[in-house]
Amino acid sequence: MNILILGDVYGRPGRKIIKAKLPQLISEYQIDFTIINGENASGGNGLTTKNAKELLNSPIDAITMGNHVWQQKELLETIDHFDQIIRPLNYPEPCPGKGYHIFTHELKNKTTKKICVVNLSGQIFMPSLNCPFNTMLPIIDKLRMSSDLILIDFHAEATSEKIAFGYFMDGLASAVYGTHTHVQTADERILAGGTAYITDIGMTGPIDGVIGVDKQIIIENMLTKRPNRFVTATGAVQINGIILEVNDLDNKVSKITRLYKIYED
Amino acid sequence: MNILILGDVYGRPGRKIIKAKLPQLISEYQIDFTIINGENASGGNGLTTKNAKELLNSPIDAITMGNHVWQQKELLETIDHFDQIIRPLNYPEPCPGKGYHIFTHELKNKTTKKICVVNLSGQIFMPSLNCPFNTMLPIIDKLRMSSDLILIDFHAEATSEKIAFGYFMDGLASAVYGTHTHVQTADERILAGGTAYITDIGMTGPIDGVIGVDKQIIIENMLTKRPNRFVTATGAVQINGIILEVNDLDNKVSKITRLYKIYED
Repeated sequence: MNILILGDVYGRPGRKIIKAKLPQLISEYQIDFTIINGENASGGNGLTTKNAKELLNSPIDAITMGNHVWQQKELLETIDHFDQIIRPLNYPEPCPGKGYHIFTHELKNKTTKKICVVNLSGQIFMPSLNCPFNTMLPIIDKLRMSSDLILIDFHAEATSEKIAFGYFMDGLASAVYGTHTHVQTADERILAGGTAYITDIGMTGPIDGVIGVDKQIIIENMLTKRPNRFVTATGAVQINGIILEVNDLDNKVSKITRLYKIYED
Repeated sequence: MNILILGDVYGRPGRKIIKAKLPQLISEYQIDFTIINGENASGGNGLTTKNAKELLNSPIDAITMGNHVWQQKELLETIDHFDQIIRPLNYPEPCPGKGYHIFTHELKNKTTKKICVVNLSGQIFMPSLNCPFNTMLPIIDKLRMSSDLILIDFHAEATSEKIAFGYFMDGLASAVYGTHTHVQTADERILAGGTAYITDIGMTGPIDGVIGVDKQIIIENMLTKRPNRFVTATGAVQINGIILEVNDLDNKVSKITRLYKIYED
């Protein structure tokens, strides 16, 4: 099976390009299961219920989140109505939503796969949450017993924490991929224990902005140190992500390929 | 002309691979001018005088630094003896060393080029220094008048600050390239105004570690939150960087290409 994972969908341009191009990508790369990171999908900040429903009208199986998960406050009330939305597992209990979900997914050949999607937030240069390493440690064996594949969106800033987490899960998870920095890294590989890894899969949204935001606003911020209201950038749009090729017999990832597409406006 | 720029040279494995492979890379890619980032070259922390001399025995024209520039205290005394070493320009005055240098470089066809190499440190998730944007603003015109090319090593953590700085310098500098995260990004491009840009050029050193350090030490750090003495990772080594192709007539960068090589131990 082939799994498509798209990085941080940013605002309206991100949602629009998903709607326009996702079916085509799924067909072109013979994709069986699709995950997106949706924590920036509503104006760059969180995810409204309306936008969640809109995204789920596209062929998306799971939406992972990150530190902006509660930025649109309504999601606190509605997240439990969405099987597909996964928020960072390392938020303190009690907290609405869930940090992982095991999807029972039927392939084209009618066999089913149990796909566990996990979301975790990093701690370095990030809002304080429980330790992602110690959050994962006691449950990984249980997840492995109940799932054919475990895919972890590690939403984090520091390359050191992301790489360390990849090694930590090597041989235990099917894939560990980073989100949050909005810039795709070129370090995709299969680690020694068989886990597919990449530090960041990049973003889905405007290319000619500063990680989604109008560039003049951010340059002015940097020069004056005064906050400005963020406005989503316009122009050409990128779709960034990865494709995982999974061996259907042993459920191991045989290949990780970066997807980096630019569509002119 | 072709310019080779290599990312953070890490410890002994980084220095060793530079010595072994740099002449071959220079020949293979017909390189005229070479810059490396050397702030991690001595045990991952700063640069000793001895290691600086050792590196400069290889065909390296300039060494840029970053937040670890003073980690090996002897460099405070010796940096002014090295024309080739550039430390972040946004350290407060008075401070030894220099933040940029204009190299008069003779090409194979005997023409000379004035190549200005600048080093700046970011402010987001980094030790406090003067604003890199406001440090560069008053001198960029002077540098442009005195140089054929301006190459800026922007040593910074946050993708937002790096991208914003790239746009800030678009049309003013020949290239803005990021260092510091040790992971090469896949976003290299020529911006609308003609400046070559990439968020991070990656590192030169052990691949099977956490940005240079033994991975078990870092995983233990993350799990226990207790500091451990860092030890450089062993095994296969990567050389990461970029090649800039420059049009000799107008001195504009016509192409930016990522270099990502892995050498088995």
